[in-house]
Amino acid sequence: MKKLLPLFFLGLTTILFAQTAQDQQSIKEIFNEALKNGKAYPLLKDLCLNIGPRLSGSPGAAAAVEWSRHIMESNDFDSVWLQPVMVPHWVRGQKEIARVINSKKMGTMNLSVCALGNSVGTGPAGVSAPVVEVKSFEELKQLGAKAIQGKIVFFNRPMDPTQINTFAAYGGAVDQRGGGASEAAKLGAVAVIVRSMGINLEDYPHTGSMRYAENVPKIPAIAVSTKHAELLSKLVKEEKELQVYIETHCEMLDDAPSYNVVGQLNGSEYKEEIIVIGGHLDSWDLAQGAHDDGAGCVQAIEVLRLFKMLGIKPKRTLRAVMFMNEENGLRGGMKYAELAKVKKEKHIAAIESDEGGFTPRGFSMMATDAVKNKIKSWKPLFEAYGLTDFNHPGGGADISPLAPSGTALIDFSPDTQRYFDYHHTPEDTIDKVSPRELEMGAAAMAALVFLIDKYGL
Amino acid sequence: MKKLLPLFFLGLTTILFAQTAQDQQSIKEIFNEALKNGKAYPLLKDLCLNIGPRLSGSPGAAAAVEWSRHIMESNDFDSVWLQPVMVPHWVRGQKEIARVINSKKMGTMNLSVCALGNSVGTGPAGVSAPVVEVKSFEELKQLGAKAIQGKIVFFNRPMDPTQINTFAAYGGAVDQRGGGASEAAKLGAVAVIVRSMGINLEDYPHTGSMRYAENVPKIPAIAVSTKHAELLSKLVKEEKELQVYIETHCEMLDDAPSYNVVGQLNGSEYKEEIIVIGGHLDSWDLAQGAHDDGAGCVQAIEVLRLFKMLGIKPKRTLRAVMFMNEENGLRGGMKYAELAKVKKEKHIAAIESDEGGFTPRGFSMMATDAVKNKIKSWKPLFEAYGLTDFNHPGGGADISPLAPSGTALIDFSPDTQRYFDYHHTPEDTIDKVSPRELEMGAAAMAALVFLIDKYGL
Repeated sequence: MKKLLPLFFLGLTTILFAQTAQDQQSIKEIFNEALKNGKAYPLLKDLCLNIGPRLSGSPGAAAAVEWSRHIMESNDFDSVWLQPVMVPHWVRGQKEIARVINSKKMGTMNLSVCALGNSVGTGPAGVSAPVVEVKSFEELKQLGAKAIQGKIVFFNRPMDPTQINTFAAYGGAVDQRGGGASEAAKLGAVAVIVRSMGINLEDYPHTGSMRYAENVPKIPAIAVSTKHAELLSKLVKEEKELQVYIETHCEMLDDAPSYNVVGQLNGSEYKEEIIVIGGHLDSWDLAQGAHDDGAGCVQAIEVLRLFKMLGIKPKRTLRAVMFMNEENGLRGGMKYAELAKVKKEKHIAAIESDEGGFTPRGFSMMATDAVKNKIKSWKPLFEAYGLTDFNHPGGGADISPLAPSGTALIDFSPDTQRYFDYHHTPEDTIDKVSPRELEMGAAAMAALVFLIDKYGL
Repeated sequence: MKKLLPLFFLGLTTILFAQTAQDQQSIKEIFNEALKNGKAYPLLKDLCLNIGPRLSGSPGAAAAVEWSRHIMESNDFDSVWLQPVMVPHWVRGQKEIARVINSKKMGTMNLSVCALGNSVGTGPAGVSAPVVEVKSFEELKQLGAKAIQGKIVFFNRPMDPTQINTFAAYGGAVDQRGGGASEAAKLGAVAVIVRSMGINLEDYPHTGSMRYAENVPKIPAIAVSTKHAELLSKLVKEEKELQVYIETHCEMLDDAPSYNVVGQLNGSEYKEEIIVIGGHLDSWDLAQGAHDDGAGCVQAIEVLRLFKMLGIKPKRTLRAVMFMNEENGLRGGMKYAELAKVKKEKHIAAIESDEGGFTPRGFSMMATDAVKNKIKSWKPLFEAYGLTDFNHPGGGADISPLAPSGTALIDFSPDTQRYFDYHHTPEDTIDKVSPRELEMGAAAMAALVFLIDKYGL
């Protein structure tokens, strides 16, 4: 026995080495195919240039649904289907106006603004009022109803540029956009202007969703470009009587029918175990939605295409899911999880790419420690491709409704240093996407799916 | 003694912890200043838009020299001076022409080309000849003089897209550009066309330097866009009689006077120990030279500015060096090392940024093992900023002449996945630079200089 044990371990070690070498080889083939013949970039170009903006409920969104179905069918996936879901149908209407109307220094001056998604409009009469600048909800509350009543509240706390994680900087500022209108309305404000969620000083505003609290008057909300936020702040400080005129024509219509689009490769051994790879198909109305989140959609499709091209027959069932309505409702993500529950489907993992089509850096996770450790144990297989960051918590919006069912949630984590230069703006266009970075992201996701499929979780 | 030793080690450990915490704090301050108030990006914008192309010997290069001196003087560095150096003076002349002249399929068709730097021109008479495609010097030699005599040789080996390190892919293809003309001329070729050093299929050619071997006829060399390389390859295979006409007007003039520009902060304790931080000031004539290498220049200046702004008095002497003529001669780098030797200066480290102004990933090094290990021991201080790659060999072109003197050579290593989309092309413009990525690179370099200055090497 004493002699056999070392031999046993030697044998085990040999097997493990061989397995690692095999996995290295498979992952190399995945990256090679993606980097030589990847189709994510041409697909994204098509989506951006021939469909373009696709806000939930819009004709663009409907076209994107048909486009996705067509692409997945023409890739010959085992099955492709639509999941009907009712979505909010918000429309911007004619171009917004915001102007400083009585500046001693500047006279009348237009501000670079856009309505925030889900906001009510002012209608053609518009709103004129003095402006009160605040940096936080706390400051707003301290000022109190007396100071706020009848005013336009200007939320001007910038994203913190010293945060290396740009999503943390976003998280530290976005409460103003999401909840600012209702917080201000509680104190009698007539409208809000929110500094755009961008780190640089820019000429263009960033749109994005806001939500109204229940039983609070709904007041119009707009975003202002970071440059004009700086200017407005200066004017407000210098001129106590300063007034701004806002005119927006946006409105929330009745919910509209739309769809998640799902394409599947059937598992050969554990068909009932499903691995979701997803992105969201809707984008803001002002953007091509190249990085947000056309990139995630085409990468999800590309993962399945890579499996097919390389002749890798998945043991488990792989699904590319184009979620609808991430931007202003998350109805698609909720519908997907609801249907999964009704059908008693077992989702072992869901991977979302919704942080842009940039160079891959790693994966973030929300899962049990055992699952996280298993995935981290694969890190050496990824390091040669520059993926070294497996330590952050995460789990994208669309897949988050799967959490209660115990699904491991995984976010693809690219380099996001320039993500918020484009996010929710007309600058989010195909020319901001590097073909190579995008394809590498798809390869990284395919490699992770390969390992999860092979070893389970 | 037995009791004292643990106490001694406890004390040492406490000191080391405190030191690490101090260093962490200093590096945090460097990044914060760079990310909040960094000046690298506005400087680069100025250089790109108000000076633009600056090939050695050109008026643009002369303007860039004056610009650098002015910027460093206005930053109030302890001293700023010029190092005279004679540089090659190559001029492109009027726009190049290359056209397929007798294709049965395409008739006459212009190709997207540009002359390679240092190449002789065809002159107004041009050259017409049949085209022989090869993928390597070996293939060329196997074909032999009989097949090559009187022909245009078309070097068409692509950069390998499956190399994750794009500089390795470049290194694997660039022999064709550098030495192809002389290799072909040895066998009697009349001109060469070289596939551009780009990974994607693009409409524009990439220029770059070539060199003639001694005692071999000098024949004209041009680069063709990757898209047209594919097309030309197809035509050459299908049509045996295919001829191409090339007309270029470039020429090498007499050497011209130019300068390296040096700015210095004096060391307070070890003044004789010099740390160089450099980039190259010259760019190709077809490019703004934003990433190559305006980025490296402004980052070098920014490193010294960060020291001044944060009130960090260097113990050692810091020099920002704008090297002249990296692109087509390296005369500036050689002159700098020559003068250092003459003056018996002690350069302990030289850091170059010449791989683009992208998100920092690490540093590559050419140094003794002791020095490399010392620098690697600082890696934990950089990981929070995404710099994890300290394992590659490296040492930029301009600083390489310092190697014989024992200087530790260090390359700043950013994410280079999209570098070769722009490299040596008109696409290398300021809009391809992310302000945040550029400033983070400067901060990363400043942090490394901070540690080298504090602890020595």
